[in-house]
Amino acid sequence: MSFVLRPEAQRDRIEIVLVSPRNPLNIGAAARAMANFGFSRLAVVAPYAPHWREARSAVGAPQLLESAVETAALADAVANCTLVVGTGTLTYRKPKQKVVALPNLAPLVQRELACGGRLALVFGPENHGLTREDLSLCHLLVEIPTDPRQPSMNLGQAVAVCLYELATRAFPPDDSAIEVVSEPAAVATEEQSPAASSGDLELLARVVEEAMIAADYSPSSMLAANRHDLRLLLRRLVPNRRDTRRILGLFRRILWRLKRVPKGN
Amino acid sequence: MSFVLRPEAQRDRIEIVLVSPRNPLNIGAAARAMANFGFSRLAVVAPYAPHWREARSAVGAPQLLESAVETAALADAVANCTLVVGTGTLTYRKPKQKVVALPNLAPLVQRELACGGRLALVFGPENHGLTREDLSLCHLLVEIPTDPRQPSMNLGQAVAVCLYELATRAFPPDDSAIEVVSEPAAVATEEQSPAASSGDLELLARVVEEAMIAADYSPSSMLAANRHDLRLLLRRLVPNRRDTRRILGLFRRILWRLKRVPKGN
Repeated sequence: MSFVLRPEAQRDRIEIVLVSPRNPLNIGAAARAMANFGFSRLAVVAPYAPHWREARSAVGAPQLLESAVETAALADAVANCTLVVGTGTLTYRKPKQKVVALPNLAPLVQRELACGGRLALVFGPENHGLTREDLSLCHLLVEIPTDPRQPSMNLGQAVAVCLYELATRAFPPDDSAIEVVSEPAAVATEEQSPAASSGDLELLARVVEEAMIAADYSPSSMLAANRHDLRLLLRRLVPNRRDTRRILGLFRRILWRLKRVPKGN
Repeated sequence: MSFVLRPEAQRDRIEIVLVSPRNPLNIGAAARAMANFGFSRLAVVAPYAPHWREARSAVGAPQLLESAVETAALADAVANCTLVVGTGTLTYRKPKQKVVALPNLAPLVQRELACGGRLALVFGPENHGLTREDLSLCHLLVEIPTDPRQPSMNLGQAVAVCLYELATRAFPPDDSAIEVVSEPAAVATEEQSPAASSGDLELLARVVEEAMIAADYSPSSMLAANRHDLRLLLRRLVPNRRDTRRILGLFRRILWRLKRVPKGN
């Protein structure tokens, strides 16, 4: 008799993240769209406390608002995710990441989930969208194709449209919480090591940054710009978990040695 | 991402019809979704007068609310249409018409418009949806696939999801207000820097290796194995030419500093 461990339903490996939502009605609408399309994992970053309370206590608020995670920073909300997808209107921005139109997102999500990854779909505040800092945590940006004369969508509607697209096109028809899988997952080889999580990459970025400082590579006025570029670079390279640990090991060693360089040298 | 605006398009032969909407916010949200996805013909059937006034006069209300048609009965609103499509949750109904899931609607709409037809997409009131009488005017019903535990969608979100589906999948690419392009526009992004050549990668590998040695990271007996892994790692990461130069710059700086560490330290 053998038992096969059932993987989590793919849907449960998708986090919906709202960054600093302002309007309690929009928070409720986003949660309702999640419930409509069978998603249950909500994280809210730095919400305005009274509005967040109001949204959670609203009559008919979906259950998932109860179990929503609250974090102070986006980096914490996406720490476990291997693919962080930012949303927004890019009309007035020139992002450095790859941009995908929403109708073309499903295959990328399928691939990530098939490899055992975790996805975050990140929505910015109503007024100005995701900041440059938030965007630097995203591997990929997705844009809902809209009319250039009225490109900016309401938050609740944008969430509904994105989740409709994923729910109808990103999952195999038999994917559900009660799916029975006949084959065990393959053992990860070197190349197939799962992608590093956003938290792993943040740790690496921090250590590399320390090494930059210790090597006087980064004049302090340049620090913020370097940090931004470094984050984007690490996400562009998509190192797997094992690569990330090795690079981290090397930089820790370098850092340890650099700290032995006498002052003023 | 690039957008091409086309005047006089097939989408101008699609009427969005709201039957007795109750909530002015929902009317506004429906109108905003229409503007987002390039639809302009709105008809409102038997609206509650104060709410309809409120929605039309709201700050930032889309222009199309101004030119919306108001009728007393659904029959009047759809009189010119050759294909009337009703929307709603059918969980507790047994409709007599053909029911189509929203992801399968586009080909039917395409066929109708190609033959010169006019389409109406009809949304019922928030509380109970379309009545039996209203349904009898529909040729076809469309259902948004939702979770059976929370099937009923908010009106503004349902309109957004339906129009997103039509805008992205029901029109030939040269006949839509929006164009879905998967590649980012010709903005020269970081990402588009050409891939680093094998020679660039070899140079980088050599400098990283020197830094490893200078940091005593690599006991000499391990050098060959490390070199092999390092080469593979750099190729796995596929840094572009610009990334490669930056990493090289950092390691050269680190190396220069490491060489200043006093011997035996």
